[in-house]
Amino acid sequence: MTITDTTVTSDTEPPAGGACEDGHGHGPHGYSQQKDQHLKRLRRIEGQIRGLQRMVEEDVYCIDILTQVSASTKALQSFALQLLQEHLRHCVADAALKGGEEIDAKVAEASAAIARLLRT
Amino acid sequence: MTITDTTVTSDTEPPAGGACEDGHGHGPHGYSQQKDQHLKRLRRIEGQIRGLQRMVEEDVYCIDILTQVSASTKALQSFALQLLQEHLRHCVADAALKGGEEIDAKVAEASAAIARLLRT
Amino acid sequence: MTITDTTVTSDTEPPAGGACEDGHGHGPHGYSQQKDQHLKRLRRIEGQIRGLQRMVEEDVYCIDILTQVSASTKALQSFALQLLQEHLRHCVADAALKGGEEIDAKVAEASAAIARLLRT
Amino acid sequence: MTITDTTVTSDTEPPAGGACEDGHGHGPHGYSQQKDQHLKRLRRIEGQIRGLQRMVEEDVYCIDILTQVSASTKALQSFALQLLQEHLRHCVADAALKGGEEIDAKVAEASAAIARLLRT
Repeated sequence: MTITDTTVTSDTEPPAGGACEDGHGHGPHGYSQQKDQHLKRLRRIEGQIRGLQRMVEEDVYCIDILTQVSASTKALQSFALQLLQEHLRHCVADAALKGGEEIDAKVAEASAAIARLLRT
Repeated sequence: MTITDTTVTSDTEPPAGGACEDGHGHGPHGYSQQKDQHLKRLRRIEGQIRGLQRMVEEDVYCIDILTQVSASTKALQSFALQLLQEHLRHCVADAALKGGEEIDAKVAEASAAIARLLRT
Repeated sequence: MTITDTTVTSDTEPPAGGACEDGHGHGPHGYSQQKDQHLKRLRRIEGQIRGLQRMVEEDVYCIDILTQVSASTKALQSFALQLLQEHLRHCVADAALKGGEEIDAKVAEASAAIARLLRT
Repeated sequence: MTITDTTVTSDTEPPAGGACEDGHGHGPHGYSQQKDQHLKRLRRIEGQIRGLQRMVEEDVYCIDILTQVSASTKALQSFALQLLQEHLRHCVADAALKGGEEIDAKVAEASAAIARLLRT
């Protein structure tokens, strides 16, 4: 299903635009690998959040719960950094190659996303 | 089940120690209310993380995924702040009333937890 | 002059209130020591900010400037954590001993300050 | 003096490389404008840090000092975001145009800088 999605994407969109819409520019195979890594990370984080629910239900000491919250927040930020790096590598670089004003829009958009990550 | 847990907790622990072990000092009723609120928050965050998995599977644009990551991180930090406030109100305040050196240990422990939240 | 200030402070304010107004409860000597440490930290941070100005004037590479900004931000947050720990140790603990509703106000105030540090 | 520096820079470096070394690609005039803005921001932050020293000397209430620390941290991060946006716009975009492996190095370097900003 991953491969189908990706094929469809790359069939229906111009390469650079497509690279930008799905945030990747590697075509089906390389892309589905990154996608699997992202999903693994997110499933691990989902497990950490369920672990937090158990900790609350079992009246675990607040400070130990806070330590687990910090770990989950750090894991979410590492995921965001990975996604951002791929975005800069593919979408922002593609916009630079296209030339014109798109690069300014892409850089402003990425900077706003970085600002949102910093503010949280 | 929440109520059962809580009753057990408050039956088996000395008030101040219990207040500190479970991070609350309000006895079964008030406590089970806080607990339900914490679990509601965490279930909402778990839903956000599953939403992130769907976004990745559906090749949603990176920047939109990053926006959702920022929202989830913010929600985790609000949960942490709520937990920390209850901890300061009950555990740290109880330690102050007990006197002796426990207050220094509790304050050092809370400060370390705040530092971990800031570092992420 | 530090010592004069502190003497005046501890002469003119009730111990607990004074502890809370100046954020310390150790009396002149211990207090002036903490104060000197805080000023040393802040002068070092001021030097880092002037260093950033030199880096900009000398066209230093952006990434190296960003590394120095991260160091200055970290130094500011360590200062804030030190101040917060003393505040919890003295003002919040004093409010707990006083009893009444002041502890709720102090904890809410400290939690709001922690939230502001996290949001930045 | 700003202008002299900048002229020297642009005389002695190839346009793209120069754009990347000084993190700007606008040539002397546009560049000296950005530089002046950066220096204005940094002087304002330096003033805030001196303000913090006065607050400590005058025994201002901890919570009010913490509020000022949060403001200074926010100002430092806004400066970092501005610098980062210019870096992405000029250095990273130039690397993309040059082609080859430089873009990967530049993106990895920028991502590491973003990670350092997030960790503080």
